[in-house]
Amino acid sequence: MSVPITGVTLTPVAFADPALLNAVGVHEPYAIRTIIEVHTADGVTGLGETYADTGHLDRLRAVADAIVGHDVFALNAMFATAKRVLSGNTGADGHGLTGMITTSGTVDRVYSPFEVACLDVQGKLLGRPVSDLLGGAVREAVPFSAYLFYKWAAHPGFEPDSWGEALDPAGIVAQARKMVDEYGFTALKLKGGVFPPDEEIAAIHALRAEFPDLPLRLDPNAAWTVETSIKVGAELDGVLEYLEDPTLGIEGMAEVARAVPMPLATNMCVVSFDHLKPSVLQDAVGVILSDHHYWGGLRRSALLSGICETFGMGLSMHSNSHLGISLAAMVHLAAATPNLTYACDTHWPWKSEDVIEPGVLSFVDGSVRVPTTPGLGVELDRDALAGLHEQYLSCGIRDRDDTGYMRRIDPSYELRKPRW
Amino acid sequence: MSVPITGVTLTPVAFADPALLNAVGVHEPYAIRTIIEVHTADGVTGLGETYADTGHLDRLRAVADAIVGHDVFALNAMFATAKRVLSGNTGADGHGLTGMITTSGTVDRVYSPFEVACLDVQGKLLGRPVSDLLGGAVREAVPFSAYLFYKWAAHPGFEPDSWGEALDPAGIVAQARKMVDEYGFTALKLKGGVFPPDEEIAAIHALRAEFPDLPLRLDPNAAWTVETSIKVGAELDGVLEYLEDPTLGIEGMAEVARAVPMPLATNMCVVSFDHLKPSVLQDAVGVILSDHHYWGGLRRSALLSGICETFGMGLSMHSNSHLGISLAAMVHLAAATPNLTYACDTHWPWKSEDVIEPGVLSFVDGSVRVPTTPGLGVELDRDALAGLHEQYLSCGIRDRDDTGYMRRIDPSYELRKPRW
Repeated sequence: MSVPITGVTLTPVAFADPALLNAVGVHEPYAIRTIIEVHTADGVTGLGETYADTGHLDRLRAVADAIVGHDVFALNAMFATAKRVLSGNTGADGHGLTGMITTSGTVDRVYSPFEVACLDVQGKLLGRPVSDLLGGAVREAVPFSAYLFYKWAAHPGFEPDSWGEALDPAGIVAQARKMVDEYGFTALKLKGGVFPPDEEIAAIHALRAEFPDLPLRLDPNAAWTVETSIKVGAELDGVLEYLEDPTLGIEGMAEVARAVPMPLATNMCVVSFDHLKPSVLQDAVGVILSDHHYWGGLRRSALLSGICETFGMGLSMHSNSHLGISLAAMVHLAAATPNLTYACDTHWPWKSEDVIEPGVLSFVDGSVRVPTTPGLGVELDRDALAGLHEQYLSCGIRDRDDTGYMRRIDPSYELRKPRW
Repeated sequence: MSVPITGVTLTPVAFADPALLNAVGVHEPYAIRTIIEVHTADGVTGLGETYADTGHLDRLRAVADAIVGHDVFALNAMFATAKRVLSGNTGADGHGLTGMITTSGTVDRVYSPFEVACLDVQGKLLGRPVSDLLGGAVREAVPFSAYLFYKWAAHPGFEPDSWGEALDPAGIVAQARKMVDEYGFTALKLKGGVFPPDEEIAAIHALRAEFPDLPLRLDPNAAWTVETSIKVGAELDGVLEYLEDPTLGIEGMAEVARAVPMPLATNMCVVSFDHLKPSVLQDAVGVILSDHHYWGGLRRSALLSGICETFGMGLSMHSNSHLGISLAAMVHLAAATPNLTYACDTHWPWKSEDVIEPGVLSFVDGSVRVPTTPGLGVELDRDALAGLHEQYLSCGIRDRDDTGYMRRIDPSYELRKPRW
């Protein structure tokens, strides 16, 4: 009756990524991810996708070896195995956009892609979509928000991408217009922390003028002091749906939360189960941006959702640069999460390459229809996988380093938090 | 692909119950339960078990009608349906042992048996035990505690049961000895709140002398003032594993918790998701006694478990008088709950009748082996079900009323909380 895991394949890949600016530098020419295949005795294979930084890849390999032999339904035991294998091994994200990573958070982010792959196997074996393993979809399609970035027209030495430069309010509005026209997004999020707050406030006002009805969000990735955060919050009263991570840490966020009119959202000060109690005790955040990649997979993300509902916090969804396996997992999770009432983040429009067979995931009116076929509903395109693995090998990027890349282009660039 | 529910059968049953004393009176000669059968288009039927009080039965009927047509995997949608059907309809437990029931708590207790029955169907369809639908069993057997009661030798007008009278420390020790000898229990819980605290303290000390190595618990069902609770806590320092519901309400419990050396456990002041935030903010309880019958079924009980782990609370399991369907559900849930590290409560030894085919659930060394067959692993004994339904019809009990029954026997009996 048991369906043992017979082996795990980990394939690091790299895909072209535009020169997107943020509070710690700029995206490198390639984003890296690891594609996970969990093979079982039944011949069914499940898919997962996660980060590919060196330390993370080492930890993935250690856990991959240890879960061979586990039943694909034995998720609790698999989590315990990951915990044991990673005991005392605490990761860092290297790019400074995630906040403090704890030991328990490290287990959650390493365990996650294996859990997703096992749920994919379970769904395939049972003939049910992954959303059914999470209590069933409560919506047929999942709405996403347009993720707007200040950006250069091109990486130095590369051809320009199709999006063009965006370094001021007009550029951001043009980018938003193109994204809304092409994808139909019904909410807009601006990645801030790049320019002085007044310029980003101006960009938000420009977006409001152009899109009077769309919810707006601003995320400076903790580039601001408490004082600056409160000032920006006051200036954007009535304009923002939520203000995301204006400042660092639970205490700072709590201080800002008491003073600004809109809810604060976070994917930086509450990024693991360890952080929830202190945050709740200090009433630091109004909205958690969940992310199954570091919240321990889909079932533990469902736990996070239940905690948000129980403790009166809103729930939205965070995104890093990702491929189709992750989007499928995000869509199943979001579909089966009744209290996920905000449009989710995604970097999807920024990528032009993928590892999955095309056709399953597409945006209509800003939403992705939930796959109803067994498992995640996506299949690997082996040629594409091989190609993006080759690209990983040749591109030389082994750890995401937005700051180092920026400093190679502009040696005067300094990492400062808070910057304003 | 959908597996629609084609109908739901609700059968109220009554089974003989000894004269067990508690803080609000005495168990009546029969305990009442409702047996739920969820029928599906595939011909597979799932089982659930819950309370049978009139108001609850009415609410069950309303929800049972409304879920016909739902896919058995659409649990999120089914919960939303229950919420809609019960909107504004808040139950009461009638017997005063549960604490405040909220509107959301009412939805959870009505939805619960349908969820269990749907998981039973899912497991049968998929060929997997219910524990696998909860992330997989992390233990092969689930340990339970002996649930000791002060009791009369017999209900007035009935034959004595096999347990004899227990109205003093010697009687309780004898009862514990018989229960440990017959079932192998490795923890002991005394239902208190019946006699003045000094007598119950003496009973605990007598149990400690007779069973030097077994963890001990005392549960007076909030019969004490804060002052009395603190006094008892001090006197039982080093003797109790936890002290259960010494006093009423989150505020009172928090006051006691600050003053006594042992953790406080509750199944009275935190009995729904509504109560968790105020309890956490006041640090009122150290251990939650979960109970899938009122925590919204097995998946929402798993959410409760995750909340306990996240917020640093221990987790144990509460029991009311129950039959085999409930025990099977409790065992699957407990097996798939890694942080359920206390032996669970059960009234199992106190009953002599059941509705399931015998043989699946039995106690070895105080533990019940987790069924590994598809679904819950138990089947209805149709003759037994019919017999206990007849007994329900003839016994006349429609709402549990320990106080009213006690007052019919002893008109001078008064309900007082706190009593001491």
